[in-house]
Amino acid sequence: MREIKSKSAPAISVRLTAGQRTQQSILDAAVDLASTDGLDGLSIGRLATELGMSKSGLFAHFGSKQDLQLATIEAARQRFVRVIFEPALKIPRGRRRLLGLCRSWMEYAENETFRGGCFFVAASAEFDGKPGRVRDAIAANMREWLNSLEVAIIKTQQEGEISPAEDATQLAFEINALFMAANWSYQLHHDRTAFSRAMKGIERRVEAVSIGKGSIRSSRKRTR
Amino acid sequence: MREIKSKSAPAISVRLTAGQRTQQSILDAAVDLASTDGLDGLSIGRLATELGMSKSGLFAHFGSKQDLQLATIEAARQRFVRVIFEPALKIPRGRRRLLGLCRSWMEYAENETFRGGCFFVAASAEFDGKPGRVRDAIAANMREWLNSLEVAIIKTQQEGEISPAEDATQLAFEINALFMAANWSYQLHHDRTAFSRAMKGIERRVEAVSIGKGSIRSSRKRTR
Repeated sequence: MREIKSKSAPAISVRLTAGQRTQQSILDAAVDLASTDGLDGLSIGRLATELGMSKSGLFAHFGSKQDLQLATIEAARQRFVRVIFEPALKIPRGRRRLLGLCRSWMEYAENETFRGGCFFVAASAEFDGKPGRVRDAIAANMREWLNSLEVAIIKTQQEGEISPAEDATQLAFEINALFMAANWSYQLHHDRTAFSRAMKGIERRVEAVSIGKGSIRSSRKRTR
Repeated sequence: MREIKSKSAPAISVRLTAGQRTQQSILDAAVDLASTDGLDGLSIGRLATELGMSKSGLFAHFGSKQDLQLATIEAARQRFVRVIFEPALKIPRGRRRLLGLCRSWMEYAENETFRGGCFFVAASAEFDGKPGRVRDAIAANMREWLNSLEVAIIKTQQEGEISPAEDATQLAFEINALFMAANWSYQLHHDRTAFSRAMKGIERRVEAVSIGKGSIRSSRKRTR
């Protein structure tokens, strides 16, 4: 189990060659297109139309539809890491960082970092029944994300701010459930209150297993 | 707000005409096909191949792809009501019925009542970015489901088994989040433990706001 490092999303723009910048622009467009129309709707022809490029020009960058899909997933991963992890890693370790990570996730979904909501939730639903390299890449990303959440919980336990008796895998599962529900509710019903509902559920769940000083609601009376 | 009635899924098979039975068989196949390949993959041609029928025969039942999609959503709704609500309504009102409803949902997802997992979760992800009658029908079904869950919580409050201070909409949102996460985890990672994880999260959440006699874990010491 390992933490997702922010170094996997370096400040690439200044160091890339012209060819790499073109490839990055193509992938940015591909990620947005896939997040609304699905990864399977991401044909080279469709993307060429979107970008005003020739199909042969795109083929020079990506040899096949599957290669384009895999590169798009990797580009989405980098954007995800940049938006979710980089702000959270600036917060001191412990419960504040864990909750900061959760707030980053809510902002990521509410601000539509990906045009159609969470790229990975959408891609999971689209590919869970389609075995192959694309499905495997999505599943690996999701596993990595849940592992990162679990690591953040374990570190909070090591800081003495969450009970060591708490099952970190279970807590990560429940927090991720609230992420998914918020994203689903916003995408289907355009209901922004879903984000505050989900965050309320997470804070309450974390508070129930909090120990030590500086409880997130230490100034409030506990109601149960 | 209204409760989904089990009468919307009567024991139809004995009362249907031959034509209606054919239509029902077509829709059964359509629901399964859509749950794995998506509602948009549900073309009349594809379904005709699956059933060994002529396209013109299918057109006689459903005038257009959209009509077929809408009829398929309605058939899925009836199957959902039959599998989720009918068993739960046999349980006495209150917390037991609420948790019975949740267990029915887990069984529904684990037993793959729909071949590709929860039909409505998959359909939501597929259509949330595609405005139109199909999207509206999916959103209406999801709204109805969450309302039913909320009604079950309110009735449990009226039975004096959940604190009246608890926000039923919030609790329904959190329970539904765990349903979605279990379905997602099973479909993507084939992880059956997701169902027990989700049920554990629900029981714990409900227990925390339980009042009155017969708490679901009344025999255990409360650990917090």
